[in-house]
Amino acid sequence: MTTDEKFHVQRHSDREVHDRLSINALLDSQYVAHVGFVDPDINAPFVVPMGFARDDDRILIHGSTGSRIMMSIAKGIDLCVTVTQLNAIVVARSAFNSSMNYESVMIFGQARVLKEEEKDVALERITTKLVPGLWEYGRALTKKESAATMIVELSLDKISAKARTGDPSDDEEDLSLDLWAGIIPLKTIHEPAITAANASGIAVPSHLL
Amino acid sequence: MTTDEKFHVQRHSDREVHDRLSINALLDSQYVAHVGFVDPDINAPFVVPMGFARDDDRILIHGSTGSRIMMSIAKGIDLCVTVTQLNAIVVARSAFNSSMNYESVMIFGQARVLKEEEKDVALERITTKLVPGLWEYGRALTKKESAATMIVELSLDKISAKARTGDPSDDEEDLSLDLWAGIIPLKTIHEPAITAANASGIAVPSHLL
Repeated sequence: MTTDEKFHVQRHSDREVHDRLSINALLDSQYVAHVGFVDPDINAPFVVPMGFARDDDRILIHGSTGSRIMMSIAKGIDLCVTVTQLNAIVVARSAFNSSMNYESVMIFGQARVLKEEEKDVALERITTKLVPGLWEYGRALTKKESAATMIVELSLDKISAKARTGDPSDDEEDLSLDLWAGIIPLKTIHEPAITAANASGIAVPSHLL
Repeated sequence: MTTDEKFHVQRHSDREVHDRLSINALLDSQYVAHVGFVDPDINAPFVVPMGFARDDDRILIHGSTGSRIMMSIAKGIDLCVTVTQLNAIVVARSAFNSSMNYESVMIFGQARVLKEEEKDVALERITTKLVPGLWEYGRALTKKESAATMIVELSLDKISAKARTGDPSDDEEDLSLDLWAGIIPLKTIHEPAITAANASGIAVPSHLL
């Protein structure tokens, strides 16, 4: 999905993803976005891994009000926020045709800093994405904590998504070779919760089981 | 590890990783790097997920000689290549202190395009990283394929690494609350290989089992 010709995927346009629902599913499944911007102090690109959450037609990124990165982002500089999921190693009959199955989305634009009264909804979304149930279960956020947290939103207006799926694409003349081809799926799993040393004896809450 | 003050990690300097072996292990464990640069046509940051391989003190990135991204990279523009591994969701007693355990490394610099005679070694490294054993097992690379592949190297001279590990860091006064805290480890697993539709009947080779 591309709303601006500048951001049109240039190569492998068959790999472009036009389905907004699948883009939303990708964004909702991933914890980390790679946030790219030009550091104004050194005029060079930076790519920083950051937690994020999608809320409707925007993504939310948060950090400390004292963070140099958040302060840069807050200035409204151009961002490219990329979220990627690797799904499989694609093993062709040749190294040349081997590849990876993946989905990725690039989000372009400038972020807007949320006002104090907009933060509560955003923090609920961010928390619930990371740990479903924690917003209700955990110790409530204090006013001081909220004030120390900067949250920015970036609209999902300008996005470009790509994906590769399916079997390897071998050359026609390689198909008769006695060589195996296929995919090796990759999967990220949540392992059972490990209780912190200072919480021993407290049962893992049901929303984490 | 930081060789240049400009790239020094600004916040949470306790999270900076000084061990080059652990940086190498991170780079070797991850398939995808997020490559950031300023697109010269639109003067805005781009962050593109790309396959990569570490070879000694450099990383190798490859793509088609016709790829717009590779052509930009080949010009020697400033890059920031970030590789991240998410290890756990860190569940504190409060949303505010919840976090993620991760390792990440940012590599800064300009890439150099490999000459034709340098490509073979590099392609072996890239292939073996993606599919150990395929370089020996698969159909050999042709001269035409090698010529159509652009490979660049980026030195590991200027890097900045960060990591968070361990239990949540709750506020002292939250420790007496009857609330659970701990981590939920995340793990990426390789699932069993799935044979391509056009390779049915050919056994999965032993190097993929």
